[in-house]
Amino acid sequence: MPVVNVALWKGNTTDQRRQLVTELTDSVARIANCPEEAVTVIVTEVETDHWGKGGRLASEL
Amino acid sequence: MPVVNVALWKGNTTDQRRQLVTELTDSVARIANCPEEAVTVIVTEVETDHWGKGGRLASEL
Amino acid sequence: MPVVNVALWKGNTTDQRRQLVTELTDSVARIANCPEEAVTVIVTEVETDHWGKGGRLASEL
Amino acid sequence: MPVVNVALWKGNTTDQRRQLVTELTDSVARIANCPEEAVTVIVTEVETDHWGKGGRLASEL
Amino acid sequence: MPVVNVALWKGNTTDQRRQLVTELTDSVARIANCPEEAVTVIVTEVETDHWGKGGRLASEL
Amino acid sequence: MPVVNVALWKGNTTDQRRQLVTELTDSVARIANCPEEAVTVIVTEVETDHWGKGGRLASEL
Repeated sequence: MPVVNVALWKGNTTDQRRQLVTELTDSVARIANCPEEAVTVIVTEVETDHWGKGGRLASEL
Repeated sequence: MPVVNVALWKGNTTDQRRQLVTELTDSVARIANCPEEAVTVIVTEVETDHWGKGGRLASEL
Repeated sequence: MPVVNVALWKGNTTDQRRQLVTELTDSVARIANCPEEAVTVIVTEVETDHWGKGGRLASEL
Repeated sequence: MPVVNVALWKGNTTDQRRQLVTELTDSVARIANCPEEAVTVIVTEVETDHWGKGGRLASEL
Repeated sequence: MPVVNVALWKGNTTDQRRQLVTELTDSVARIANCPEEAVTVIVTEVETDHWGKGGRLASEL
Repeated sequence: MPVVNVALWKGNTTDQRRQLVTELTDSVARIANCPEEAVTVIVTEVETDHWGKGGRLASEL
């Protein structure tokens, strides 16, 4: 049942995404008392020139 | 007024997306009693190595 | 696998939400060639004074 | 920088949400190599009659 | 066409939301060269004990 | 704290995104009474053949 969306800057390796999926699924399933099978994790990688932080493009920080 | 976001695995054709937009707009407009013109549908296609299912990357299931 | 988010104005009955879930799941599963069991639909009902349309609060249109 | 949205069924305690925030922040910060301070976690609790699973309202499963 | 989602802590007045809708619609329509009528703004107010910042619940900062 | 997601059709320049980030951050920080540093803006550019408007693909309007 739980759906986890993670938005972060582009540039992560497949290993990093695999680790994110493994750890976030474990935490959410354990804490929310549901089977891991029910957990969806979507990793949205965003270009830094499409991300604003403190009023500036993250590509220009 | 309604905004529909559909996140699914990458690999759909334009025909499939056209059909999704047509059917989802029809259902939502009819059920929510609003004009079709008011319905927005956004199709987000996600790489399977950015999607976690049951604790594993969907690209490695 | 597919996750469908529907954001619309508050005020729908359980019957309307049931019908939304039934029809959207049927369309998405059929078009995306996946089992209905894999489809998640989240209905987000929004107060009209939390929704802007054409620069005005929907509660004040 | 990372923004984590967790959508799950309503009914979690503050302790559970605290634990979710603690663990998800730790994992994301460590894996994405960013300070914990930069991580935002939003927990969206959804009524089961606003959540569709396999074509049915979760409240009616 | 543009859809703007603003997630922020609960506690804003209708005036604040009206002002958000007015200003965000104006900026997006002008910058993206589309009519204001086409812009949707959804304001999602989140309880501080459903929001994590730096690994802690915002209600406990 | 506030997180602003802007979904719009692909085709905007870096200047347009910079201006969006600047103006939306200014408005949200001022109206929600928080430091600009706390505001995140994510610009999601969507292909017009992934966007439905009034039941049709925006690429075919």
